[in-house]
Amino acid sequence: MMGSHIDTVINAGIYDGCYGVLAGLSVIEALQQAGLEPVRPIAVVAYTNEEGARYTPDMMGSLVAAGGLSTELALATTGRDGTILGAELERIGYAGTQEPGFLKPQAYLELHIEQGPVLEAEGRSIGVVENLQGISWQRVTIGGVANHAGTTPMTLRHDAGVACARVISYLDEFAHATLGAVATVGSIEFKPNLINVIPSSASFTVDLRNATEDLLQAQERALASFLQTLREEGFTVQTESLARFQPVSFDPDLVLAIEAVAARKQLSCRRITSGAGHDAQMMARITAAAMIFVPSQKGISHNPAEYTAESDLIAGAEVLLELVRSLVSG
Amino acid sequence: MMGSHIDTVINAGIYDGCYGVLAGLSVIEALQQAGLEPVRPIAVVAYTNEEGARYTPDMMGSLVAAGGLSTELALATTGRDGTILGAELERIGYAGTQEPGFLKPQAYLELHIEQGPVLEAEGRSIGVVENLQGISWQRVTIGGVANHAGTTPMTLRHDAGVACARVISYLDEFAHATLGAVATVGSIEFKPNLINVIPSSASFTVDLRNATEDLLQAQERALASFLQTLREEGFTVQTESLARFQPVSFDPDLVLAIEAVAARKQLSCRRITSGAGHDAQMMARITAAAMIFVPSQKGISHNPAEYTAESDLIAGAEVLLELVRSLVSG
Repeated sequence: MMGSHIDTVINAGIYDGCYGVLAGLSVIEALQQAGLEPVRPIAVVAYTNEEGARYTPDMMGSLVAAGGLSTELALATTGRDGTILGAELERIGYAGTQEPGFLKPQAYLELHIEQGPVLEAEGRSIGVVENLQGISWQRVTIGGVANHAGTTPMTLRHDAGVACARVISYLDEFAHATLGAVATVGSIEFKPNLINVIPSSASFTVDLRNATEDLLQAQERALASFLQTLREEGFTVQTESLARFQPVSFDPDLVLAIEAVAARKQLSCRRITSGAGHDAQMMARITAAAMIFVPSQKGISHNPAEYTAESDLIAGAEVLLELVRSLVSG
Repeated sequence: MMGSHIDTVINAGIYDGCYGVLAGLSVIEALQQAGLEPVRPIAVVAYTNEEGARYTPDMMGSLVAAGGLSTELALATTGRDGTILGAELERIGYAGTQEPGFLKPQAYLELHIEQGPVLEAEGRSIGVVENLQGISWQRVTIGGVANHAGTTPMTLRHDAGVACARVISYLDEFAHATLGAVATVGSIEFKPNLINVIPSSASFTVDLRNATEDLLQAQERALASFLQTLREEGFTVQTESLARFQPVSFDPDLVLAIEAVAARKQLSCRRITSGAGHDAQMMARITAAAMIFVPSQKGISHNPAEYTAESDLIAGAEVLLELVRSLVSG
């Protein structure tokens, strides 16, 4: 089975998702034209709602296919626009009749643009995705004491904004010092958010990722420990878990097979970790799964500026073709 | 001349401003009852628009009285609600006929709640305000590069949020290490402000204050220098000055006189710097000016919870009374 998704986000690019599905169709066409008689069926799948832009959670189609969410619950999901997923699938003619599990793939392969800058920066054509980062999302809210910016001496302050800044700097330093770690504070809010009032509250999101569960836990512990020191300084600190996924390792044999194909085709390749979520991580629950990345200019994705050179798109599809050919040849 | 203001902010307390005006009226009443024949006139003034809540700038009435803004420009000011100050003063019967400068005070005295926690924390009844902090307000906008929170390695990031956090921590440390300095980042905005996107932009306000102009300039230079290092790291940095007032020193003889009165009355007092702006700083341009502070519970002001004990209110008014009595006695 080859696949990806064709849904997308608002103001998206043209590669993320569609590339993997269209490449899958092209592979089948090429194999048919070559007159190959496969020893087992070849399927292409376009999973519903990978992006989660209208209905949550994201990667919903592959989650259902992998048995992680019931079909009934998924179809009953209400979207941001108030529509029901099941009814919308009926309306557009995409509601199927088969139950999850009716296909039992021998392997799942997903071809995708990198969504990161690594392959382009190193001038490589192919990324052999060996694993996928675990993700830990939290919201942290630090409570201090609002007070007058002019009349409150530094030593009498409980400035929630300064405490927040210290957390951001610390997470950044810890991620720099931790193998394969990334840490991002992307969203922030001060209260009362006025120029001449010491912030009484700073609320911010923390996005920690690592391909190694132990190291991801180390990042989480470092954050918890830093927040504890803030509590001891008199701040209130609340944390809320927003999402937590363990890292996923792809099938080692498939990873080796992709590398071998790329080497035969004399394509420069490297093993790589996916920092983004993909349907392949869900499929890895029930079958051997792996992914092939091609470079994405400046790592831009989910943006009309998303761009991958034609030569890289073709190279990725050819690696997929050769891999599938070897898997379905007698 | 004694005075303060009776305008206020939305959701205000009952002391800030009104206390100084009502105390002035009480002083005159007390002197009349005592049968005092003053050697010069005594006036009480309630300046228009000290808070600047509806019309900007704040301290507008005393600014006009001190010749810093023409009457015509001030009266033509359009408020947040679209009204014109001059027309509104006419409407409520507060438009006067005299020009600024018609009163040439020998001295200006303003009694006010502290708006800070220092007197209460030290258990003192009277603050003898010897000067008023200079204020430097800037808006700083740091530009980095938005990117995927999962797929962008730490070493390839230009995270505007992290850069902003470093600035906040640095300003806080520098203020702690600088005599009489305070620094506040009260307002902040990240863009795009999403949990899984590295901030492309962080915009925040900086409020620096010091009673000594040299030290205030040192704070400003430290900020500028830190921002320059960020530029050298590849960030774009824009700064915009939002306000800049030099520190104001009050009349040394009046300060000594207030101290002497408090001592005679066996009131615990200390010299203090005002961190907030007051009409007295405008009047200091044209006459000997000084201020008397009384404690404010927890330093809270501009809030219904604003509270000063009756004994402190009376003590402050009695110091004002004795001071005025000495100034108008033959």
